[in-house]
Amino acid sequence: MVNANYDELSKQMKELRHLSNSQSILYWDIRTYMPSEGIEQRGQSLAILGRIIHEKATNTQIGELISQCNKSDSGLDSIQKRNVELWKRDHDRETKLPSDLVVRLTKQSTITEHKWEQAKQKKQNFAIIKPELEKMVELVKERARALDPDKPMYDVLLDEYEPKMTAAGIDSYFKPLKEGVIKLIKKYQDAVADNPPNTTILKKNIPVDQQKQVSKWIMNFLGIPPNRSRVDEAEHPFTTGLAKDVRITTHYLDDDPTGAIYSTFHEGGHALYELNTPEEHWFSAVGETISMGIHESQSRFAENIVGKNPIFLKYFYPKVVQKYMPAFNSLDTDTFIKTINAITPSKIRIYADEVTYNLHVILRFEIEQDLIAGKISVGELPDIWNAKMEEYLGVKIENDAEGVLQDTHWYAGLIGYFPTYVLGNIYNSQMLATMRKSIPEWEDQLGVGDFSKIRNWLVTNVQNKGSIYDPIDLINNICNQPPDTKYFLDYLNEKYSRIYNI
Amino acid sequence: MVNANYDELSKQMKELRHLSNSQSILYWDIRTYMPSEGIEQRGQSLAILGRIIHEKATNTQIGELISQCNKSDSGLDSIQKRNVELWKRDHDRETKLPSDLVVRLTKQSTITEHKWEQAKQKKQNFAIIKPELEKMVELVKERARALDPDKPMYDVLLDEYEPKMTAAGIDSYFKPLKEGVIKLIKKYQDAVADNPPNTTILKKNIPVDQQKQVSKWIMNFLGIPPNRSRVDEAEHPFTTGLAKDVRITTHYLDDDPTGAIYSTFHEGGHALYELNTPEEHWFSAVGETISMGIHESQSRFAENIVGKNPIFLKYFYPKVVQKYMPAFNSLDTDTFIKTINAITPSKIRIYADEVTYNLHVILRFEIEQDLIAGKISVGELPDIWNAKMEEYLGVKIENDAEGVLQDTHWYAGLIGYFPTYVLGNIYNSQMLATMRKSIPEWEDQLGVGDFSKIRNWLVTNVQNKGSIYDPIDLINNICNQPPDTKYFLDYLNEKYSRIYNI
Repeated sequence: MVNANYDELSKQMKELRHLSNSQSILYWDIRTYMPSEGIEQRGQSLAILGRIIHEKATNTQIGELISQCNKSDSGLDSIQKRNVELWKRDHDRETKLPSDLVVRLTKQSTITEHKWEQAKQKKQNFAIIKPELEKMVELVKERARALDPDKPMYDVLLDEYEPKMTAAGIDSYFKPLKEGVIKLIKKYQDAVADNPPNTTILKKNIPVDQQKQVSKWIMNFLGIPPNRSRVDEAEHPFTTGLAKDVRITTHYLDDDPTGAIYSTFHEGGHALYELNTPEEHWFSAVGETISMGIHESQSRFAENIVGKNPIFLKYFYPKVVQKYMPAFNSLDTDTFIKTINAITPSKIRIYADEVTYNLHVILRFEIEQDLIAGKISVGELPDIWNAKMEEYLGVKIENDAEGVLQDTHWYAGLIGYFPTYVLGNIYNSQMLATMRKSIPEWEDQLGVGDFSKIRNWLVTNVQNKGSIYDPIDLINNICNQPPDTKYFLDYLNEKYSRIYNI
Repeated sequence: MVNANYDELSKQMKELRHLSNSQSILYWDIRTYMPSEGIEQRGQSLAILGRIIHEKATNTQIGELISQCNKSDSGLDSIQKRNVELWKRDHDRETKLPSDLVVRLTKQSTITEHKWEQAKQKKQNFAIIKPELEKMVELVKERARALDPDKPMYDVLLDEYEPKMTAAGIDSYFKPLKEGVIKLIKKYQDAVADNPPNTTILKKNIPVDQQKQVSKWIMNFLGIPPNRSRVDEAEHPFTTGLAKDVRITTHYLDDDPTGAIYSTFHEGGHALYELNTPEEHWFSAVGETISMGIHESQSRFAENIVGKNPIFLKYFYPKVVQKYMPAFNSLDTDTFIKTINAITPSKIRIYADEVTYNLHVILRFEIEQDLIAGKISVGELPDIWNAKMEEYLGVKIENDAEGVLQDTHWYAGLIGYFPTYVLGNIYNSQMLATMRKSIPEWEDQLGVGDFSKIRNWLVTNVQNKGSIYDPIDLINNICNQPPDTKYFLDYLNEKYSRIYNI
């Protein structure tokens, strides 16, 4: 049945998606190639574009078209109905945001993020960025209040990254997780103490060109076509773009090549998800990725479940790492596997092992909630950060660059985002448990450097579903049960009992 | 005096400038880093953005604001009045273009240009791009007719790149130029024949990294701050951006390093102009560069008057070329100077010497006019091109990549643009004649690798004038007389009589 309202609505939403993707490319440019002095004018350009998008997204015609499409006799099929539902969700959200707030948010996030980047690079004190972050946090709170003055602000923010998720829901996952993780750390405490991991042996001086070769290999291994993607360098790795142009960035450190290796796996996983959303629905809501948690499930699948799998590493380390980075010839495969997977507290979240990583996120989740609730001030962040790091992980933060300045999120206005990383762990280990039933030989595949069967499973069961289901429904659809932290703890226990032989 | 209409108009025009500059960055991305499969969706994004810009530029409110500002009691100062005049010029032009034509033009130019790039790279036959170019030419003609159905189409197109210029005006410059150039070629025919230049000695294998070092040196020599600019690689060199973010591209050929050297001088000259428009007027019309002819005068000043000056080369060649590209150690300075300046017909315009270059442009000017007048068809372009190349320059084109496919302009819809290159030669030699009166030691400065005095003169007298004057008025303002081809011929005669000692 032809529905002129739906067609018009589709057309307008498609245009909006093109505009927001143009914005994304302009952000990508800021963080990869833009000359530094260009930041102020770029901030203005993005604010103008942001206002235009906001005006288009909130114009009353769209509201009317949505109402028309929601009538019982609309004759829309289930996919079309889902599109209308998702567009309505976005439209309702956007109409609640005053235009000037959108402009102020865009401008401030561009400035704060850029200044954060410089502060981190120059290892400056947090104090230098504090006034900008204060403005950012106030704007984020203003945003939450505008979206829903009746709900707790933090829940409002969470919902933007993980539809229908609440702080209480996260708590219900994170509580057993925290317990399980602490138990696990204790279980291997002695084994770790007997044979203390020396992660400094991974810190080899590797020319950037060699590191780029490895990144290229990883992209190819993951099945990401070079004519639809690219790898650039940025201070903080990220993935952007959609449909046939999805780009990742990594950060090559001269003296620490595993950073770029695993950020390439991670961002490559994100890129794979974006590239494999259902092509027939691209530029409509159903053709999008559904949530940051599911996004992280895919990136962390590539990074951890695949990239740090001991059987995969028996292939990857000699055939790729040692081949392209001969400086690793002096380090044997088993030691690499043990060291890269070592349960050892790290100051930096993105370099943490799969066990302690969760505590990094739980720490941020706790701080974020208190920050938004006004229980702590921006100025207190470094002290609270450092204290919690010592309490949870026993590490002493020496300067803010390795502490509260390490992640871009808060400076970019992304508060309520961090929990999605651990949701990703919870989701993907549950996906793995299901996948193993149809691909019991999944590890043998990895052992010969073949990701294709696993990739196809992820594409078919997760990525190609786009936004047909909300996250919890998607997990239900794939695994026949809602998300359950048990699978992640099982995964960790199985993995580490094999590594430590306990 | 406060004029609320002017303030509102300024604000809206500033926003438009931000939007069109965002478009420019998205085009830059296509030609530098975009994954190739992204072209179709990017074309759509740019078309949508183009339509939004067009709608904003043509909305009736802007027309009304302009009318209000044009009232005799507006109280505007002369700069403000000039802004209104220029905005009215643009607004009148834009309102004549139907929205759908703008969209079709944007889409088609993205596609044609991208396919041209591939065709050229793969050395494919012109036939492969012919259908796309046919569509492009028809759209350009449709554009000219919409802008002014009463004026010759080619004059309408010319006026967009060089305000107030006509084909007859160009003819009046090009006729004496053609005669003068042919005379000059004859004058040195014997000298050239006695000592035939061997340009193949310049074709050395030079690693791209070394070439990048030289490009970097040139940018620094020209006084272009790295935090406001950058150099990337593209199939066809170009400059884009404005205010504090102006980027150039060059094309590094493994076996022909002078190509990148001189395109860096050329594009660097363009960048210098953009960066030195009057900052207090940025994002208003007066703060813009005035025309492509004046633009080319600056780029070709850097490329030829400076970059190929024998006294400058006595410094630049040993201290830069030979230093960063040791493969040149076997070639002495005098031979380099003679060879780089040799009057010798080339197939490729951008590699031509300063004398024969003009014939390349005259050829394109003649073909363009006939193409737009319908005297020749798109399909005939390769044959006519090749025949004229043989007639004017005595060279035989072997494949379209070195013939009609060599330049991007027509494929990007830029018809009427080529003459501005030679206008640039005419303008800048006249500027030079004036500059020499205040900096008689200009060549001594170049001889010690110092561009600063010359740069300051260009900034003060040309670049910092922005769009206060139309091109001919600007030349009048600087040189106290209208453009005159005589100065360019004098410049060529002086230069070559010194090189050939005749």
